[in-house]
Amino acid sequence: MRLAHHPAPEGYDVVVIGAPYDGGTSYRPGARFGPRAVRAESVLLHGTGVDRPHATFDLIRAVDAGDIDLSPYDMNAAVADATDRLRHLARHNDALLMIGGDHSLTLAALRAAHERHGPLAVLHLDAHSDTYPPVYGGTFHHGTPFRHALEEGLIAPGALVQAGIRGHTPRVDSLEWARERGVHIVTADQVMEDGVRPVLDALHERAAGLPLYVSVDVDVADPAFAPGTGTPAPGGLSAREVLALVRGVGTLRPVGFDVVEVCPAHDVSGITALLAAEIGAELLHQYARSRKAGGA
Amino acid sequence: MRLAHHPAPEGYDVVVIGAPYDGGTSYRPGARFGPRAVRAESVLLHGTGVDRPHATFDLIRAVDAGDIDLSPYDMNAAVADATDRLRHLARHNDALLMIGGDHSLTLAALRAAHERHGPLAVLHLDAHSDTYPPVYGGTFHHGTPFRHALEEGLIAPGALVQAGIRGHTPRVDSLEWARERGVHIVTADQVMEDGVRPVLDALHERAAGLPLYVSVDVDVADPAFAPGTGTPAPGGLSAREVLALVRGVGTLRPVGFDVVEVCPAHDVSGITALLAAEIGAELLHQYARSRKAGGA
Amino acid sequence: MRLAHHPAPEGYDVVVIGAPYDGGTSYRPGARFGPRAVRAESVLLHGTGVDRPHATFDLIRAVDAGDIDLSPYDMNAAVADATDRLRHLARHNDALLMIGGDHSLTLAALRAAHERHGPLAVLHLDAHSDTYPPVYGGTFHHGTPFRHALEEGLIAPGALVQAGIRGHTPRVDSLEWARERGVHIVTADQVMEDGVRPVLDALHERAAGLPLYVSVDVDVADPAFAPGTGTPAPGGLSAREVLALVRGVGTLRPVGFDVVEVCPAHDVSGITALLAAEIGAELLHQYARSRKAGGA
Amino acid sequence: MRLAHHPAPEGYDVVVIGAPYDGGTSYRPGARFGPRAVRAESVLLHGTGVDRPHATFDLIRAVDAGDIDLSPYDMNAAVADATDRLRHLARHNDALLMIGGDHSLTLAALRAAHERHGPLAVLHLDAHSDTYPPVYGGTFHHGTPFRHALEEGLIAPGALVQAGIRGHTPRVDSLEWARERGVHIVTADQVMEDGVRPVLDALHERAAGLPLYVSVDVDVADPAFAPGTGTPAPGGLSAREVLALVRGVGTLRPVGFDVVEVCPAHDVSGITALLAAEIGAELLHQYARSRKAGGA
Amino acid sequence: MRLAHHPAPEGYDVVVIGAPYDGGTSYRPGARFGPRAVRAESVLLHGTGVDRPHATFDLIRAVDAGDIDLSPYDMNAAVADATDRLRHLARHNDALLMIGGDHSLTLAALRAAHERHGPLAVLHLDAHSDTYPPVYGGTFHHGTPFRHALEEGLIAPGALVQAGIRGHTPRVDSLEWARERGVHIVTADQVMEDGVRPVLDALHERAAGLPLYVSVDVDVADPAFAPGTGTPAPGGLSAREVLALVRGVGTLRPVGFDVVEVCPAHDVSGITALLAAEIGAELLHQYARSRKAGGA
Amino acid sequence: MRLAHHPAPEGYDVVVIGAPYDGGTSYRPGARFGPRAVRAESVLLHGTGVDRPHATFDLIRAVDAGDIDLSPYDMNAAVADATDRLRHLARHNDALLMIGGDHSLTLAALRAAHERHGPLAVLHLDAHSDTYPPVYGGTFHHGTPFRHALEEGLIAPGALVQAGIRGHTPRVDSLEWARERGVHIVTADQVMEDGVRPVLDALHERAAGLPLYVSVDVDVADPAFAPGTGTPAPGGLSAREVLALVRGVGTLRPVGFDVVEVCPAHDVSGITALLAAEIGAELLHQYARSRKAGGA
Repeated sequence: MRLAHHPAPEGYDVVVIGAPYDGGTSYRPGARFGPRAVRAESVLLHGTGVDRPHATFDLIRAVDAGDIDLSPYDMNAAVADATDRLRHLARHNDALLMIGGDHSLTLAALRAAHERHGPLAVLHLDAHSDTYPPVYGGTFHHGTPFRHALEEGLIAPGALVQAGIRGHTPRVDSLEWARERGVHIVTADQVMEDGVRPVLDALHERAAGLPLYVSVDVDVADPAFAPGTGTPAPGGLSAREVLALVRGVGTLRPVGFDVVEVCPAHDVSGITALLAAEIGAELLHQYARSRKAGGA
Repeated sequence: MRLAHHPAPEGYDVVVIGAPYDGGTSYRPGARFGPRAVRAESVLLHGTGVDRPHATFDLIRAVDAGDIDLSPYDMNAAVADATDRLRHLARHNDALLMIGGDHSLTLAALRAAHERHGPLAVLHLDAHSDTYPPVYGGTFHHGTPFRHALEEGLIAPGALVQAGIRGHTPRVDSLEWARERGVHIVTADQVMEDGVRPVLDALHERAAGLPLYVSVDVDVADPAFAPGTGTPAPGGLSAREVLALVRGVGTLRPVGFDVVEVCPAHDVSGITALLAAEIGAELLHQYARSRKAGGA
Repeated sequence: MRLAHHPAPEGYDVVVIGAPYDGGTSYRPGARFGPRAVRAESVLLHGTGVDRPHATFDLIRAVDAGDIDLSPYDMNAAVADATDRLRHLARHNDALLMIGGDHSLTLAALRAAHERHGPLAVLHLDAHSDTYPPVYGGTFHHGTPFRHALEEGLIAPGALVQAGIRGHTPRVDSLEWARERGVHIVTADQVMEDGVRPVLDALHERAAGLPLYVSVDVDVADPAFAPGTGTPAPGGLSAREVLALVRGVGTLRPVGFDVVEVCPAHDVSGITALLAAEIGAELLHQYARSRKAGGA
Repeated sequence: MRLAHHPAPEGYDVVVIGAPYDGGTSYRPGARFGPRAVRAESVLLHGTGVDRPHATFDLIRAVDAGDIDLSPYDMNAAVADATDRLRHLARHNDALLMIGGDHSLTLAALRAAHERHGPLAVLHLDAHSDTYPPVYGGTFHHGTPFRHALEEGLIAPGALVQAGIRGHTPRVDSLEWARERGVHIVTADQVMEDGVRPVLDALHERAAGLPLYVSVDVDVADPAFAPGTGTPAPGGLSAREVLALVRGVGTLRPVGFDVVEVCPAHDVSGITALLAAEIGAELLHQYARSRKAGGA
Repeated sequence: MRLAHHPAPEGYDVVVIGAPYDGGTSYRPGARFGPRAVRAESVLLHGTGVDRPHATFDLIRAVDAGDIDLSPYDMNAAVADATDRLRHLARHNDALLMIGGDHSLTLAALRAAHERHGPLAVLHLDAHSDTYPPVYGGTFHHGTPFRHALEEGLIAPGALVQAGIRGHTPRVDSLEWARERGVHIVTADQVMEDGVRPVLDALHERAAGLPLYVSVDVDVADPAFAPGTGTPAPGGLSAREVLALVRGVGTLRPVGFDVVEVCPAHDVSGITALLAAEIGAELLHQYARSRKAGGA
Repeated sequence: MRLAHHPAPEGYDVVVIGAPYDGGTSYRPGARFGPRAVRAESVLLHGTGVDRPHATFDLIRAVDAGDIDLSPYDMNAAVADATDRLRHLARHNDALLMIGGDHSLTLAALRAAHERHGPLAVLHLDAHSDTYPPVYGGTFHHGTPFRHALEEGLIAPGALVQAGIRGHTPRVDSLEWARERGVHIVTADQVMEDGVRPVLDALHERAAGLPLYVSVDVDVADPAFAPGTGTPAPGGLSAREVLALVRGVGTLRPVGFDVVEVCPAHDVSGITALLAAEIGAELLHQYARSRKAGGA
């Protein structure tokens, strides 16, 4: 989006930051190049929109802080370093938009948002619940961030809403751990049948009064819309549905965002990176709506 | 569609003509190879269809006139040369189907249709309104054709219906110019919510009694369905919706057509070119319905 | 799906078998590499699923029998050899899941299922009716299997349900032959308008009490969802709709399956092969539901 | 090369004809789309060349006769039909340039050239000797044309020179059949070590006084230069070496040509088709040199 | 190469500047995205090298000035604006390295280098001589820059050396204009036969004592090495030969550089952009050798 | 190569084993899918060859042991597990051919070969010396295996020959560590100038009497020949040169092999995987020559 670059910004409304990391990927790696691709495609975006009364960047001050420097070899160090960097940014700016990278670093972003804003409500759009346990010695692999976040108390009770979940899970009972902890799961099939409205209704009910974090794994969209990702799952949402879900958060209190799991090596003419950029732009606009334009 | 080729046809119902030009492209060029790709993919199409009582080419005489010879370097000359060639064809044949090329030459096609048939109704399917002003010294760039057409009086008052509009515009007020001039705009989101029926209803109301021009920019479809285009915009229509919109024009009086903005370098296994070829075939069939089969 | 391999299995519930053949292809060949691609993508699948009470492979015994050895040069020999191999497998195991390969060998699979289970009901998901006559000296080309099957009496009267049919057919009256023989055809447009429910209702009515064969040509999905196929047709179903149709067969009595026409050379990041693998996994699960879990 | 098209040419120096056929392919099919791709890329070629004193098309009359209509399903019929069409063209024109399609139809072209010009010398550039026996019931598969040609007496004794041969053969003794019949084989390694000169020396010695047929399988080039082919073999010639070999035939008496095995589905940015088009253009120029310009 | 960015640098040894322009392209456009791709791939490069005694950036001060702002629609304006920007940079810094973009803007870079350093010697590596006349109303299209440069007196008499020239030219006598003006042309075939040494010998003879400009069109390499370009020509140099030619200029007095015609839409895994980045890095190192390390 | 599969082979001449791991990759990951791709492409290979007197598999007994089970998340565990598995195999079979995966696991293979055969001579074909120190907390990243091997005493003094080295290194003095320890380095430029003979001469001198390990990183070939790799470097060897180098080891005493760094996500029509498969087949044949055919 042609934002100015500042490596150590202070006092901004939103700081965009890249997390070029895929050390937590279970299947097709390559998301480390996600931030580069999303930034490249974002030059098409202006921060305006059909029937939007304001341009995003007329309402808020945003800046690009570049990428977090992360070890590709040491997962524990990567999560710790990302946590440090994001917490530092969160102390000096209001909200962060992290461009992944794989989903594992969302844990770091949730920690940073929690430190600044307290227990969070979360809208999590994804094909996978990512509340699974560690495997293969990987404490923080990309199927774990919301498990750790729940265990670390970063999320307010009952305030995690997941939509788009589908497909194969490691075990038959993989979702039970989450449901027992009050996670509200809407499957992709339910979205096909009932539309996006019930998801947003559930979110508004559960997130009322809470600071809201929105995490979008691009694989929530069907592989036709997002082929460039590491663990694609057929039967996903359309791009329109994903964007409609994102558009529903501006009347709440969003305080943190991520768009993750863009894997350019498997992308097609940049459509996945462009969709991720559009989601990011929409998230910024929702932030702008919520803070500066009275939610209109 | 394996049509016969004739460089200077006379007396045909429809003349298909390629416009291998992308000098008006703002982002990813390459649409100059669109006609070649669309023709190549069209060999799969027979002019028949499920539950169609007639084959298109049993009802009408159609011919392929080859490509317009266009300067890749001089935009003003290209628009002028295209206008000359298309007007000449329109004088000696009933309707034209132009295969783009970028959208800028639709102005030439509208001029030709207007010269033969008078003030036009227009169905314009696109992600972008293309009623923007010139920039960068480009009087006729691909975001301008409908602005020029309105200014040149080629379109009857209130008779331009646009559907699929979405995404980022150059300025917040980019659509005001069009709306102030009576353009009826249906956004992509409205199509998701209400379906294609309201678009066709509005068109039938506004185009009644007028000669109808149909212009389809393939980027009206979501990038999943049409990755091979120059300025893709996430959140677009499905191929089925686009085809359903096109299928609704046969009970009006269609007199001119284009399918534009196929950019093969960004296409994927030819799916965009194939979709464009199918749209072209459907447009020919709608023409056949309207003229020869009593609209049935 | 990481199944064990056994070249001559006996006593299994389901035998998966590849048919690396594209000698019956009319347009883009390459489906001979379909089995390899589908198996490769299937490593992502576990036989579990969101809100499934059982894992597929806890309920049934399945095995991979490798590929049928087929001549790429002699169509008649290929169909005969496939028939022999599949009949042999069908005699010693309950159900087969054939991974194509082009659609022509479905005839062999229908013969094998018929020999074991008697006259079949068939759910056929495809863009094309495949009830066309031989052309170019190709008795068994990929547009013919259901014509031969009807002529050979493999399908019970009125028990063939086709969904997703669309696009161009060889002749205006191409579907009449099928309809005259009681084939129930649901077009892709009808699915868009009315959803998948009417297809399943028609199937349950016609297939009640009969052994059911399910044949899925991946081109039933729109080229956006399945670009890797030989004769793509714009305007197809979404992946979610295809999967929803497949999910409806477990309360019937499925006895044979195929997923065909994956052409990896035209695929994009494996999304077509992955969709085919998911369809195959779902078919196995439906079989498991129908036999071992009381259809629940 | 933007040649005029004539479906039934007579009296031309060279007729270009496409053979859209891949029914004889043993591994990756798709060469049926070779003629379309080669023609598309050939628009870059003008028939001129650095340091050529004449433009090809100032010296000779050439025409494009379109494609041979061939069954994709019946190999015997395809070879017979191609033989008929090519013999007919050879009776009414001096030389043919066939654009493949797989290598199997070279047999038909050799038959046609032999009928008009008598026993032939042949320069055969290929990774594979193509003197193998039929397999899988495929009498005329793409590994057999030179075996049949030798058996049918189309090639003068000792006058077949093969260069670029390498890689794996069906059996250890696969080349013995050819060598026993006087075929002169130069391996790809020998070309790397000694250059192209010895190949041309051997050819000039063996082809002196004979009509010369030149058959180029694009897989003679390394997969880096020709990825778009059906049976690629690493360790091949560079494009420069292939072109240098082709440039050496103008001082002999060339009477027939083919460039085969372009498989666009595996090509990369058209480089294989472009190389094939360049080879075709060079062959036409060598013909022109030999006939009209005194070999200069 | 991870250089610092400065939009208006002064006092640097070398300024890297992007020219995202392809308005002068005759065949496949898309070079406007060349600078972005070359910069992205350049992250692999460190400015060190096997058996180099110094790291480039220990010897010289280099900076990235971003891209020139250029109209995609108005060729005359683009050349004028590029000339202004480059002249301004050349006044305040020693040497420029322009990353194209198509070849037409090399004229602007030659003007800037000439203004600062006087009549130039030029090493021009390319498949095409680019001394052709304007066509289609395009005064400055990408086949013209060296014609204009010779006509404008930017190049010292006899001091233009071109290597890699090959393939089809617009007319038989296309190279005569250049040769009559003393241009030394080495064809690609001559490089294959005699190696790169004679090119460098000719250059050292003609460029002795003159400021040297080096212009590299990536299409000098064979399409196997540089598929991502607009007008590929088979039979080109290997990457090693191109790099060996570039490595020969450090003992002369290089003062300006460009690497042009990278067209990412036709590239393959970034190999063309990476080669261009490597050429750019080598050019910077040659500059460093010539100025700071005594040519060692 | 259609080898039989055995998970725990004993008494074989050569065991082929996959190492689906890329946790040590510094730039583009994805080599974890290398074994799958190399096996898929290897179906074209028969173990025969032009002018080979014997078929490989008539001379030796070879088997495919499947893949090593490796953590994608924990580098230390991966190297330890690979070492265990390979040592176990080496105890019960004569030689191993490891298909990578990234280069880091070559350390494990060298350990296994050393345990069975004692201090090794090594032919290492690569663009990079891989004798670099750990970075980013990655003790065993893919730039380190030969450093560790030298430090662990696995390689006999002076018996490591590296060829193809080129491009950018982390520091100016990166090769000094290796040279000080007697590593013989032949750069890619030296191969261009002097051919492959000097490399083999040096190897025969240094490896005489020693067990020989051959490690081939596919990036030793130029990106044109091997685009599908993680850290490509322009200016590399041709496929013919790489194969000629490999063909030179059969008169020595080869005891272990690997082909690594195939990254399918960046490959093009499988040419990199096919080249790797051909290298693997050639290595097996050289083993066969050395042991069973008297080196003939």
